[in-house]
Amino acid sequence: MTISMYQASIPVFLRALDNLAAIMDVGAAHAEAKKIDPLVLTGTRMYPDMFPMSRQVQIACDMVKGGAARLAGIEPPPRGDTEKTFAELKERIEWTAAFVRSVTAEQVDGSEDRAIVLKTPFGDLNFTGQQYLLGFVLPNLYFHSATAYNLLRHSGVELGKRDFLGRA
Amino acid sequence: MTISMYQASIPVFLRALDNLAAIMDVGAAHAEAKKIDPLVLTGTRMYPDMFPMSRQVQIACDMVKGGAARLAGIEPPPRGDTEKTFAELKERIEWTAAFVRSVTAEQVDGSEDRAIVLKTPFGDLNFTGQQYLLGFVLPNLYFHSATAYNLLRHSGVELGKRDFLGRA
Repeated sequence: MTISMYQASIPVFLRALDNLAAIMDVGAAHAEAKKIDPLVLTGTRMYPDMFPMSRQVQIACDMVKGGAARLAGIEPPPRGDTEKTFAELKERIEWTAAFVRSVTAEQVDGSEDRAIVLKTPFGDLNFTGQQYLLGFVLPNLYFHSATAYNLLRHSGVELGKRDFLGRA
Repeated sequence: MTISMYQASIPVFLRALDNLAAIMDVGAAHAEAKKIDPLVLTGTRMYPDMFPMSRQVQIACDMVKGGAARLAGIEPPPRGDTEKTFAELKERIEWTAAFVRSVTAEQVDGSEDRAIVLKTPFGDLNFTGQQYLLGFVLPNLYFHSATAYNLLRHSGVELGKRDFLGRA
């Protein structure tokens, strides 16, 4: 037996988004309790030339938006990157989850050998659907989610790994 | 069509370990070039109650060691957590990769519905093989690898996301 491309992508994406949304709530509550400007937390960076927390969340969202769309063979719905507050970031996550949920198993299953081309400033990246999911979308999703988590944790927000993994 | 449990695990684990080993090399070279005690870098933490960089690498290794073993239906080979230097951490990664490589597709394929029980200090965690891989091993692997990366990046080590993702 085997696992389907749908099972390996859509429910996994939704769980990661749910966890990220809950982490935004913890960050917002921390800012309020400690009387910290929330924009300090959403704007914090690991190093001056790295993206701020808000952008880490936006990229995590775009990874699963692009992943769901490309595996389904449809265009990712466009959206700008304007979110600054925890509430705006949470709305971005929920908007992304609504799109991911709209993709069906019929669209995604069978995509493991589909040719996927990602246009990047550094040239085209060519994948099969399976390579794209396992070698690009999932590591990027978790990289940016973990970086958002680490930035809040580094700022004193009380989070535990269970917030990152979710409760099974 | 579908993907096999072996394809979704063993090559993915090996790539993540290769990338983590290369990140150790970049950290070691940075310490040498900047005349920084390497143990400062391997001992750095995101927050006082989080694990140091060295332990993040050890946990990432244990996630794939346990993942490969349990999906194959064998016992994970025991190993203590004594590594402190970049060279020792790299050897740990390579030891782990050698074990992961020893697991075969015949052992892992068909494990998606296998009952997997993880004993933890907080009680037993019960998974199917597929839940264990997609909802526990992969997010933990990337969480701890990304945290090791972020700790070095935060310390001024020149890394880019391509070091984390690997070159396809």
